[in-house]
Amino acid sequence: MIVRKRQNALALLFALQGSVLPRIFPQVLCAGMFGLMVAAVHSSHFANVAQYTTSPFTLLGIALSLFLGFRNNAAYDRWWEARKQWGRMVYEVRSLVRVSEALLGATHPERRELLVWLSAFGHALRGGLRERDVRDEVAAVLGEARAANALAAQNPADYCLREAGRSLGRCFEAGCIDGQGLRILDERLTGLAEVQAASERICRTPLPYAYTLLVHRTAYLYCYLLPFGLVGSMGWFTPLFTAIVAYTFFGLDALAEELEQPFGETANALSLDAICRTVDISIAEALDEPVPEPLAPVDHILL
Amino acid sequence: MIVRKRQNALALLFALQGSVLPRIFPQVLCAGMFGLMVAAVHSSHFANVAQYTTSPFTLLGIALSLFLGFRNNAAYDRWWEARKQWGRMVYEVRSLVRVSEALLGATHPERRELLVWLSAFGHALRGGLRERDVRDEVAAVLGEARAANALAAQNPADYCLREAGRSLGRCFEAGCIDGQGLRILDERLTGLAEVQAASERICRTPLPYAYTLLVHRTAYLYCYLLPFGLVGSMGWFTPLFTAIVAYTFFGLDALAEELEQPFGETANALSLDAICRTVDISIAEALDEPVPEPLAPVDHILL
Amino acid sequence: MIVRKRQNALALLFALQGSVLPRIFPQVLCAGMFGLMVAAVHSSHFANVAQYTTSPFTLLGIALSLFLGFRNNAAYDRWWEARKQWGRMVYEVRSLVRVSEALLGATHPERRELLVWLSAFGHALRGGLRERDVRDEVAAVLGEARAANALAAQNPADYCLREAGRSLGRCFEAGCIDGQGLRILDERLTGLAEVQAASERICRTPLPYAYTLLVHRTAYLYCYLLPFGLVGSMGWFTPLFTAIVAYTFFGLDALAEELEQPFGETANALSLDAICRTVDISIAEALDEPVPEPLAPVDHILL
Amino acid sequence: MIVRKRQNALALLFALQGSVLPRIFPQVLCAGMFGLMVAAVHSSHFANVAQYTTSPFTLLGIALSLFLGFRNNAAYDRWWEARKQWGRMVYEVRSLVRVSEALLGATHPERRELLVWLSAFGHALRGGLRERDVRDEVAAVLGEARAANALAAQNPADYCLREAGRSLGRCFEAGCIDGQGLRILDERLTGLAEVQAASERICRTPLPYAYTLLVHRTAYLYCYLLPFGLVGSMGWFTPLFTAIVAYTFFGLDALAEELEQPFGETANALSLDAICRTVDISIAEALDEPVPEPLAPVDHILL
Amino acid sequence: MIVRKRQNALALLFALQGSVLPRIFPQVLCAGMFGLMVAAVHSSHFANVAQYTTSPFTLLGIALSLFLGFRNNAAYDRWWEARKQWGRMVYEVRSLVRVSEALLGATHPERRELLVWLSAFGHALRGGLRERDVRDEVAAVLGEARAANALAAQNPADYCLREAGRSLGRCFEAGCIDGQGLRILDERLTGLAEVQAASERICRTPLPYAYTLLVHRTAYLYCYLLPFGLVGSMGWFTPLFTAIVAYTFFGLDALAEELEQPFGETANALSLDAICRTVDISIAEALDEPVPEPLAPVDHILL
Repeated sequence: MIVRKRQNALALLFALQGSVLPRIFPQVLCAGMFGLMVAAVHSSHFANVAQYTTSPFTLLGIALSLFLGFRNNAAYDRWWEARKQWGRMVYEVRSLVRVSEALLGATHPERRELLVWLSAFGHALRGGLRERDVRDEVAAVLGEARAANALAAQNPADYCLREAGRSLGRCFEAGCIDGQGLRILDERLTGLAEVQAASERICRTPLPYAYTLLVHRTAYLYCYLLPFGLVGSMGWFTPLFTAIVAYTFFGLDALAEELEQPFGETANALSLDAICRTVDISIAEALDEPVPEPLAPVDHILL
Repeated sequence: MIVRKRQNALALLFALQGSVLPRIFPQVLCAGMFGLMVAAVHSSHFANVAQYTTSPFTLLGIALSLFLGFRNNAAYDRWWEARKQWGRMVYEVRSLVRVSEALLGATHPERRELLVWLSAFGHALRGGLRERDVRDEVAAVLGEARAANALAAQNPADYCLREAGRSLGRCFEAGCIDGQGLRILDERLTGLAEVQAASERICRTPLPYAYTLLVHRTAYLYCYLLPFGLVGSMGWFTPLFTAIVAYTFFGLDALAEELEQPFGETANALSLDAICRTVDISIAEALDEPVPEPLAPVDHILL
Repeated sequence: MIVRKRQNALALLFALQGSVLPRIFPQVLCAGMFGLMVAAVHSSHFANVAQYTTSPFTLLGIALSLFLGFRNNAAYDRWWEARKQWGRMVYEVRSLVRVSEALLGATHPERRELLVWLSAFGHALRGGLRERDVRDEVAAVLGEARAANALAAQNPADYCLREAGRSLGRCFEAGCIDGQGLRILDERLTGLAEVQAASERICRTPLPYAYTLLVHRTAYLYCYLLPFGLVGSMGWFTPLFTAIVAYTFFGLDALAEELEQPFGETANALSLDAICRTVDISIAEALDEPVPEPLAPVDHILL
Repeated sequence: MIVRKRQNALALLFALQGSVLPRIFPQVLCAGMFGLMVAAVHSSHFANVAQYTTSPFTLLGIALSLFLGFRNNAAYDRWWEARKQWGRMVYEVRSLVRVSEALLGATHPERRELLVWLSAFGHALRGGLRERDVRDEVAAVLGEARAANALAAQNPADYCLREAGRSLGRCFEAGCIDGQGLRILDERLTGLAEVQAASERICRTPLPYAYTLLVHRTAYLYCYLLPFGLVGSMGWFTPLFTAIVAYTFFGLDALAEELEQPFGETANALSLDAICRTVDISIAEALDEPVPEPLAPVDHILL
Repeated sequence: MIVRKRQNALALLFALQGSVLPRIFPQVLCAGMFGLMVAAVHSSHFANVAQYTTSPFTLLGIALSLFLGFRNNAAYDRWWEARKQWGRMVYEVRSLVRVSEALLGATHPERRELLVWLSAFGHALRGGLRERDVRDEVAAVLGEARAANALAAQNPADYCLREAGRSLGRCFEAGCIDGQGLRILDERLTGLAEVQAASERICRTPLPYAYTLLVHRTAYLYCYLLPFGLVGSMGWFTPLFTAIVAYTFFGLDALAEELEQPFGETANALSLDAICRTVDISIAEALDEPVPEPLAPVDHILL
């Protein structure tokens, strides 16, 4: 995630970081070059270039904007829902920290156990979503042996949650908490299971592939036919305009594609590492252990 | 559901799998041929073809885009809500696995009973939504006799849930759980009943039929009148443009129709089989039984 | 609700059932005739017809599409929310069936009482929303005397729910259920009260009347001014185009008006009868009584 | 709230009640007169009127429709959310009526106390939102002395809810209900607190003022520049068209402004009085007191 | 937040307060000056100015309106969600006031403790979101020493909530409340934790930076190319029109940027101070302490 103060208007015009421009530059250039070619042939009178009026493009532009707008909304909704779920992780853990102290006392050994598994849960879920090795982070809280067990499971995050549930089960059996207490604590775990299921849903269920195809193809057809529509009235300015239109349409396409997968490690993805750290801080404070520093953005990017 | 890595721009342009193009190809071809006919008659001067300007089409295009955009949003919302409900099934089952261990102990016979019925519930619901025979899958977890009973019920999924509730009732009567425990476990079953009701709602309540008619008719009228609007300014390019516009409008129409029924077995439908397998894995792990493999996409398609 | 298999493209073009066309045919015809008149006067040169260009209509078309699109979304949201609430009724009743068996046992007389009132609740609510006499259905489950009492109340559906609550109160007083059990069962009744309140809200609070006026008037103004904009460039095709545009705008207007009241008995309204039957089936199965058949669509229409 | 049967198309065209037309008539007239002036000057050739083409207006029209559409959606969402919250009040009170009978018995004196405070809560909240004196209604249920106390509080509605909570506290202390019962009843009060907070939020937090300004100014600029764009092609019809466009844009603006404050007493505001009466009926039936009549619309308006 | 009575149409046209006009005036002026320059060069015939037709701008305008509309919706949703969360804070605190009296009695010392921490929670959260020093307000309720401790924590708001939880823990241990009571009270604290997490999410997760770039750049390109499209048909009116278009597009851009951060202290930001005061009033009334005045808007602005 890119975090930076609002810049002035000029700086914004030329910022590159986080922009989709570098990614779509080749495509925009191609479209512009094609526009240049059309303009050159048109101006040379060497060949008779088909000149359309622009009005059919308005028709097509409505359809294209329909697709792009829809896809963009859907992608942003996924991104924002993912952020909400990870925000929920923070308050579920904080609530568990708070209420477990009231129910079990601050120093109950099972409370430590419970919270340690939650910290591991965050890292395991993050590891799964980002397809990254989180052995070190998990081992730091669980110890090597248990971390290896957890990460060897089919679904490590679910394993951590089950272990946290077992910790509750032991408290219940030992009479430290009654049914009511079990319910209070288990509701938080169910909340975390919901976070996990929602994250996996967003991560593993892309937008229907047919949308990607429809949007992509319409945008290409549009941008490569456009020069024929413009060349009659705009002459040598055709490539410039074609490139600008291509920039807006390809840019929105690329951005939607990036937001569709909010758990990646691109510049516009969510800062899962920082959220896991927030969770770790809450847990460390609760256990009176040395509190780690919150993650700071590196070069304006918070991972 | 189609699962594949992002392809490069060129590959996307020519991908066929998951595309709606094969389905709408005849309609697009027809529209294009009609455009060709109009252009031919126009160019032959043999007959006096009515030439409209394109501006009335802009008016109609606004209305059509209104219909298509609305219908597309509604269809996608159904698809995504269906996916959310099935994601909820996953976390409700996982939570039941976790909390039943805390309440009853890992090896309580009624816990096995309970979880087995949940596995059957998933398959029975899937079978009902996809109108597919799931006798084998249900029999594998319930045994032949009970599976036959379950599938003979008016609503097999509801039957499984009721049997799971009976298992809870026996625990409650035997004193293994108190009212609080019953409540904790029953809330999960209520969640599953909600998943079922929502799935049946989406499956059995199509979008109002009048929308389908209005969209379909307007799209046809539009695409078959368009050549008259284009032929004056675009001549022999009329068929090409008509086909492109028909592709975008018919394509979105066909896609919305496909997403409207997210439980089908088309390429863009949800992967119910894979989700049921995820549920089975969680249950098998909980019961210390051999854990099945997660379903892998076959030819990029995950059913 | 119209339930039919997807038809082929041609059949869709000429389907009448469920279409709004019959309802708006007079209005579309009028607009077309007016267009014809304008074209005739224009062509006769007898009188000097004002010819506008079409561009001002684009401006107005944007505003009109804004109104129609908004109203359509709002109407569909009401329709879908109503369907969700009635789907909720199904799972609340099923959950009550399930958990009352666990808490009270399958054959407890108060359980029968409770479920019978719920069946009556569904019919009473449906009767109120559809302004239809449901004495027979209610009497079938409650007996004549109690049905007469229930239907004589200010709000029969609320009366049934209160009686169901009284049944719970008797169980509570007799010690068959404790506070926890009362809570589990009462939560379901609260859910049903929510279904009722939401249904009454949708039924009794139409969209603000001013929207209806604004949309209606703008659509009329638009369609009756349009011929003057078209006649210059389209001549004798003016009536055709005017009729098509009138069809799309009046059609969406009529459809939105129909969906705004999802509890009616029109072809696009919700199938409340069928949902009540689903509830009755669940209850009959629970009480081991003869199970009625699910309602089947008659002539593709499910009431 | 305006409640009337669907009228025929002609009646709708000329209905005045509930229409925003009377409110915006002066503004529409002004715009039309300005258009007439432009047309007159143009036709007299006395002065050289700037004639634009209409195409720049399409650009501006897109932006304006963006603002108006957004604002309209936001205003309607507020209106509908307010209606949902007041519908929630109905079912929370009905549920409280139902479950308090099960827990306390129908004739427990504290039950009467509790319900009486809820009735007062509804009137006090309505009074606060509508800035109306509700002393009579509150005194009718609470008696003069207690009503004076309640209405003298900083927040009378909150005061009533607190008193209802005190009634619960007395029951709890006297052992009439246990913790579970307190929880069941208090959940309903929390729901009512939510209704109150949401109503106050909608009432006291207008849409950001800058939107009002931006929409208002753009609409004015648009309508007063439009005659220059139309006069070239439409001549003496310029004032007519300008007035129609002004009617649609100013009309939507005025309607959005009215819906933004759904608790007012305008024709399109919510019928808070009728909802309070519904609540009173439920409570009177529960207490076996004379049941008041439901409020009927006066001259099609339900306050 | 700006709170003022609806002004008449003329006053609205010239209001400055809360308007984004002052902020974007330089940009609008620049665009207008550039338009003037283009018009001057064009009219002087000194140089051959490229004249485009306006139709390509319609294409680009569709894309730009897509971006601006989307961004505006997203920003407003954040603003309104933030307001909802702070409204939730009000009813969670009021409910805690109410139910803690029922459970603990009005004068229990831990009740005072609990409520005092909640008041501190509101101020600490506000301080964190607005990056403002709230030592005085927190010290007023907690005393200097405890306030210093609270504000020295990594996350002061979370610290206050944890301390409130400890207060509940002491009540639970002392037997003043049982598990059920703990649950009732803790649910409210969990609600407040949710408010905090949501506020921090909105505050710390800006809209993806790439949107800001894409919108900003497209708007600039558009407004600086527009004069070339207008100059042919509009001559010396080009700068006026360019400035108007720039005002609408830059204005919406600036407004969206302002609403994106609803916790700031700009004129359109939320009135956090006033909400905290509302909370303080509820708590003071509950503790029978001198009740502070509600905050009144200063110069129409409520902070």
